Amino acid sequence: MVRVVILGQGYVASIFASGLEKIKAGKLKPYGVPLADELPVKMEEIEIVGSYDVDTSKIGKSVYDVAREYDSEASETLREIKIRKGIHLRSLRNLPIEASGLEDEMTLMEAVDHLVNEWKEMRAEVFVNVCTTEAFQPFGNREELERAIAEDKRDRLTATQVYAYAIAQYAKEVGGAAFVNAIPTLIANDPAFVELAEESGMVVFGDDGATGATPLTADVLSHLAQRNRYVLDIAQFNIGGNNDFLALTDKERNKSKEFTKSSIVRELLGYDAPHYIKPTGFLEPLGDRKFIAMHIEYISFNNARDELIITGRINDSPALAGLLVDLVRLGKMAVERKAFGTVYEVNAFYMKNPGPKDRPNIPRIIAHKKMRMWAGLSPRWL
Amino acid sequence: MVRVVILGQGYVASIFASGLEKIKAGKLKPYGVPLADELPVKMEEIEIVGSYDVDTSKIGKSVYDVAREYDSEASETLREIKIRKGIHLRSLRNLPIEASGLEDEMTLMEAVDHLVNEWKEMRAEVFVNVCTTEAFQPFGNREELERAIAEDKRDRLTATQVYAYAIAQYAKEVGGAAFVNAIPTLIANDPAFVELAEESGMVVFGDDGATGATPLTADVLSHLAQRNRYVLDIAQFNIGGNNDFLALTDKERNKSKEFTKSSIVRELLGYDAPHYIKPTGFLEPLGDRKFIAMHIEYISFNNARDELIITGRINDSPALAGLLVDLVRLGKMAVERKAFGTVYEVNAFYMKNPGPKDRPNIPRIIAHKKMRMWAGLSPRWL
Amino acid sequence: MVRVVILGQGYVASIFASGLEKIKAGKLKPYGVPLADELPVKMEEIEIVGSYDVDTSKIGKSVYDVAREYDSEASETLREIKIRKGIHLRSLRNLPIEASGLEDEMTLMEAVDHLVNEWKEMRAEVFVNVCTTEAFQPFGNREELERAIAEDKRDRLTATQVYAYAIAQYAKEVGGAAFVNAIPTLIANDPAFVELAEESGMVVFGDDGATGATPLTADVLSHLAQRNRYVLDIAQFNIGGNNDFLALTDKERNKSKEFTKSSIVRELLGYDAPHYIKPTGFLEPLGDRKFIAMHIEYISFNNARDELIITGRINDSPALAGLLVDLVRLGKMAVERKAFGTVYEVNAFYMKNPGPKDRPNIPRIIAHKKMRMWAGLSPRWL
Amino acid sequence: MVRVVILGQGYVASIFASGLEKIKAGKLKPYGVPLADELPVKMEEIEIVGSYDVDTSKIGKSVYDVAREYDSEASETLREIKIRKGIHLRSLRNLPIEASGLEDEMTLMEAVDHLVNEWKEMRAEVFVNVCTTEAFQPFGNREELERAIAEDKRDRLTATQVYAYAIAQYAKEVGGAAFVNAIPTLIANDPAFVELAEESGMVVFGDDGATGATPLTADVLSHLAQRNRYVLDIAQFNIGGNNDFLALTDKERNKSKEFTKSSIVRELLGYDAPHYIKPTGFLEPLGDRKFIAMHIEYISFNNARDELIITGRINDSPALAGLLVDLVRLGKMAVERKAFGTVYEVNAFYMKNPGPKDRPNIPRIIAHKKMRMWAGLSPRWL
Repeated sequence: MVRVVILGQGYVASIFASGLEKIKAGKLKPYGVPLADELPVKMEEIEIVGSYDVDTSKIGKSVYDVAREYDSEASETLREIKIRKGIHLRSLRNLPIEASGLEDEMTLMEAVDHLVNEWKEMRAEVFVNVCTTEAFQPFGNREELERAIAEDKRDRLTATQVYAYAIAQYAKEVGGAAFVNAIPTLIANDPAFVELAEESGMVVFGDDGATGATPLTADVLSHLAQRNRYVLDIAQFNIGGNNDFLALTDKERNKSKEFTKSSIVRELLGYDAPHYIKPTGFLEPLGDRKFIAMHIEYISFNNARDELIITGRINDSPALAGLLVDLVRLGKMAVERKAFGTVYEVNAFYMKNPGPKDRPNIPRIIAHKKMRMWAGLSPRWL
Repeated sequence: MVRVVILGQGYVASIFASGLEKIKAGKLKPYGVPLADELPVKMEEIEIVGSYDVDTSKIGKSVYDVAREYDSEASETLREIKIRKGIHLRSLRNLPIEASGLEDEMTLMEAVDHLVNEWKEMRAEVFVNVCTTEAFQPFGNREELERAIAEDKRDRLTATQVYAYAIAQYAKEVGGAAFVNAIPTLIANDPAFVELAEESGMVVFGDDGATGATPLTADVLSHLAQRNRYVLDIAQFNIGGNNDFLALTDKERNKSKEFTKSSIVRELLGYDAPHYIKPTGFLEPLGDRKFIAMHIEYISFNNARDELIITGRINDSPALAGLLVDLVRLGKMAVERKAFGTVYEVNAFYMKNPGPKDRPNIPRIIAHKKMRMWAGLSPRWL
Repeated sequence: MVRVVILGQGYVASIFASGLEKIKAGKLKPYGVPLADELPVKMEEIEIVGSYDVDTSKIGKSVYDVAREYDSEASETLREIKIRKGIHLRSLRNLPIEASGLEDEMTLMEAVDHLVNEWKEMRAEVFVNVCTTEAFQPFGNREELERAIAEDKRDRLTATQVYAYAIAQYAKEVGGAAFVNAIPTLIANDPAFVELAEESGMVVFGDDGATGATPLTADVLSHLAQRNRYVLDIAQFNIGGNNDFLALTDKERNKSKEFTKSSIVRELLGYDAPHYIKPTGFLEPLGDRKFIAMHIEYISFNNARDELIITGRINDSPALAGLLVDLVRLGKMAVERKAFGTVYEVNAFYMKNPGPKDRPNIPRIIAHKKMRMWAGLSPRWL
Repeated sequence: MVRVVILGQGYVASIFASGLEKIKAGKLKPYGVPLADELPVKMEEIEIVGSYDVDTSKIGKSVYDVAREYDSEASETLREIKIRKGIHLRSLRNLPIEASGLEDEMTLMEAVDHLVNEWKEMRAEVFVNVCTTEAFQPFGNREELERAIAEDKRDRLTATQVYAYAIAQYAKEVGGAAFVNAIPTLIANDPAFVELAEESGMVVFGDDGATGATPLTADVLSHLAQRNRYVLDIAQFNIGGNNDFLALTDKERNKSKEFTKSSIVRELLGYDAPHYIKPTGFLEPLGDRKFIAMHIEYISFNNARDELIITGRINDSPALAGLLVDLVRLGKMAVERKAFGTVYEVNAFYMKNPGPKDRPNIPRIIAHKKMRMWAGLSPRWL
């Protein structure tokens, strides 16, 4: 059994919940789940035991009620999970959503205690953070983080940071827990949190689930690097119509995303080819199926100039939801192995910005092998 | 020193010769040469010592005269290499080129002896086959191959097959030689030739240099396979304006190409997703810079349907010429190591259809590592 | 009322029938019908009164039974129209379909009489030809056409040619009828048929409904021509998974298609820019939603070289079916106006190869205005 | 003779000057010049008589010195034209360029007089405004405009607005002059300037030369509209590496551009389909050859959903420079015809935002015909 708590019951969490129930009912093939049946922990063992959100139109409803707005085939089995009020801290600021957080009724420290108590009741094991992209500042320093919580510094902290802190407290009390951070806020890349995790018995995977155009760009760049082709420039556009794209029209949030994506170029090519890699815009009718466009120019032998253009329509939320089906199981395994802190081998394949800080992006195909080995699976193709 | 003989002084060979001289003169960065400065055998050590063709407008001219038609900056140092008459056997059939081969004046066996003698004079070490794509039939059986040569069966043999046989004879006499087969004719995948190579002291690399859209498709398919996405269909088009595309308008030659490309899908995905992967047409003004277009549809998590489109303008000949700069050096190294027969580790990265027969295509990024290890280089990213 | 007979109850005819019934029931907006509510003859007045096919699995069934295989929402009102046996003449040759035609039981002349009698019962007014693309030879000469029918020359004639002949006989007897030829077989471009039409009281619209990539290419080329940009080359690929694409894998049929498409380049640009414009392949999972890819290179001011790439996923059958909703009404109007023969103003907008012979392709946007004026509608934008 | 003064000696003006001299010397075909040899005023009659800029590294140099930085084949005949100091008013603000304007040394009114005097010496006839895109506010009201100049309100005015005012003064004195406004600042769309032009004997063409992706999008949207396809959404990206793209990274300037482009959708489709149409980013190595990407989704018959993707590499400056070769001649013709104010027939084809205000965008192919008729040329295709 893997007892999962969802933080942010939006599109991704709903598809995750809905798809998972279908797989458990034998109604869906596990396409998009990289390790599917290969892991010792089976998909059928995953159970969602709790869910949190700050959208007042969701709080108090069942996961079923919310999930079927995203997937009309959502399973009735999701009726039993109620959505509880979580941490807000401006995470839905500027979005056309009415929001309310625990911190409206208590101090942050009290909210942490409140959550820890709820989680104990749920006997939670793995936490999945799929909140809306936040504008944030990393801590770096653990004392500063703890002071911010203790002193109730609401402007310094984001929901994700408070959740991560609370899970560390919970892990310390119950002897281990895992936190899968699928959004750009730096947690696995913030030494403050990694240190906290190591000491508290928490496993952190992160940051920012590796979906969309970026992992593909990564493999295309690796492809060019291995042939010693010299990349002149890279442009990558993204436009979608889901809430996450709407959130990214907010300039500060967009900055978080850009940070994640840009390191890839230097890390894979070995030099910083000029690039423009940003989520570009919001266009409502595209819905969750975003349009991506990439343009790459490079020099081949004898100064020949080549050009690649990649376009696509990609379902944003299912791509991440599929990865989560692996990550919650790997999280459970990591806790059992007491691999507290963060696990680069997992992050390097599943995350856009693999922690810990200063560990690089590597070609995903290579990362895939490292990850399999970590998980005790034989590498393919070797 | 690596003493190279070119078989087929067309676009690829001319760019290879021209680019190589520029690198030796310090005028060109080795972009598009995967191993560039990393190999113990340096690029500066490569010397072209002979060249063969069957186009009567080229025979007797210098490599410089021909190369500058493809690259106006070709080096005067290529003046000293004269283009000699090689084997024709219909290899330019149906093309608007007047051709003449050694076999017009003598039996095939005599032609083989003639060539072996010339190569001894040249002290040739590595042979690069960049003839026009041929319509061919593999042998499979070594006796049948030897009988075809002995009995002068001109309809059964292609130029490439006779060259490979001749090089085996030469290798036997001089104690080793390498044959780089960069075109689709099966040599490294024909057990008849591999057996012959093993016994004669010949190294064969082949078949069909891995350039163009196919290696990229391979890496994109691997990318999808690793995420367990289910590929519904793949369409890949290619159109160009060089002689090779003109040759492929010939139906039988086209079939050779299709064979090479199709195995990739099953080998990388593990199932035979419906696909259409063929060189599509000839359009003269595109010249050597072909237009490629790919369309891939796949199923992601929760039955979401995604779509990728890749288009590009890619210089055909430089891509292959850059690989040859590695292959001739690896050929020399393989002869020194007495790795007679064929070398899968090299083929798997550099060839579309890596021999020996029944060895699969693997993701190029993985093949890259295997190849580096074979070459005594440390793998990147591990 | 417009009483329509369908010739070839395949994908296009089924979507036409199904969509039409939905529009009549107020369940579907008339998107894809260029003139929608603007014509004096309303969409609600169209009635399908007969249908013919040669697929033995369809003959005897109702249009509803067949249409719901292509559109699960097909209307029950289509139950009343039975599919009758039509003319085959090898039109399904080489396709994996068991076929049987009237000519298996009688001479062609008898089949013509048989059909004319059935049509009289139906009081048919407009005939829509949406048979599978045929390999054919135009007649040019009317006597030769009549001799071929009289002498039962089955190898010389295609189903479309016999239908057109039969409709002319019918028109002569009842005082007028229209034939909409939506496939590539030359009818409006064959002087033999146009002459026959003029004398028999038949209106012919044709040939080959202007859907897919070609009309778009036409407008893009006009766009370039008006800016005096010099087109260097054009490549256009098409791949789909419906029966029409399967039929086009047959080389002879493919040739019919190529003929239609190639004249466009010269007619719109004023010079014959090198081009490759062909239906390229069959890939079953693509279904009716074909993948198109175009590449156009041109010279702009000061010798600058620009490049356009257009790709798309386009539903093949609905595009044509939408045009048919106009064409059957325009056919009725033309009969009423006694515009016997063919009507260039209609063809120039709706047809890939607008008849009569030797009348050119013009930019579709211009053709649109001419057509509107013919139909008595005010031009837009003037 | 057409005596032309350039305002803003950047990329466009340099390609215009260089290409024009090549055409006059018989060294260049007039590709990209829509009317080429058709106009009564010949290309050979165009003479550049003056040039203005505010980049201190350009002021005082010859047009030849500057043009050859953009085109190494620029003609020596351009040596004789010196670049003079023009109006700055923050038009290069935030760009990495040292700038100085006449207004640094005198009042705006004095600067106007200064310019008028210089232009009298030059006997200027047509002025071409190709300054860098400005952040601006239209006037609407003529009194307000005149007061801003008289009261030296430097914060209220842009360089383009002052130039337009000065040219009106010049036209009044010499009996006519034309102003071609090829940038987004509203002049032909600002009633203040149109009224001023009518009374002063000035012809204004504008605003914003119709190059790049937008006119193509316009024709593609018209193509869809004529088939009654319902457009669901439109995304259009643009990224380039020239100074104009650098300038557009400035948020306020970008807004000017967006305004121009967005009206097209409603005007051509008849409804405001959701769209994202913006210059997206700056990527230096792309240079003047920008990358464009468009995505359009629409509904066809029977609710079928189609998708088009257009990508391209387009030389930005030559596209506009080619149009200028027509516009300066049409400007001269308009002055001779005393068509003072603005000329919609010309603007509708050549301008992104055709003035006067409230006149719509129409399909370019239709506009092309209107324009030809205005110019006294027979329409094509009618």
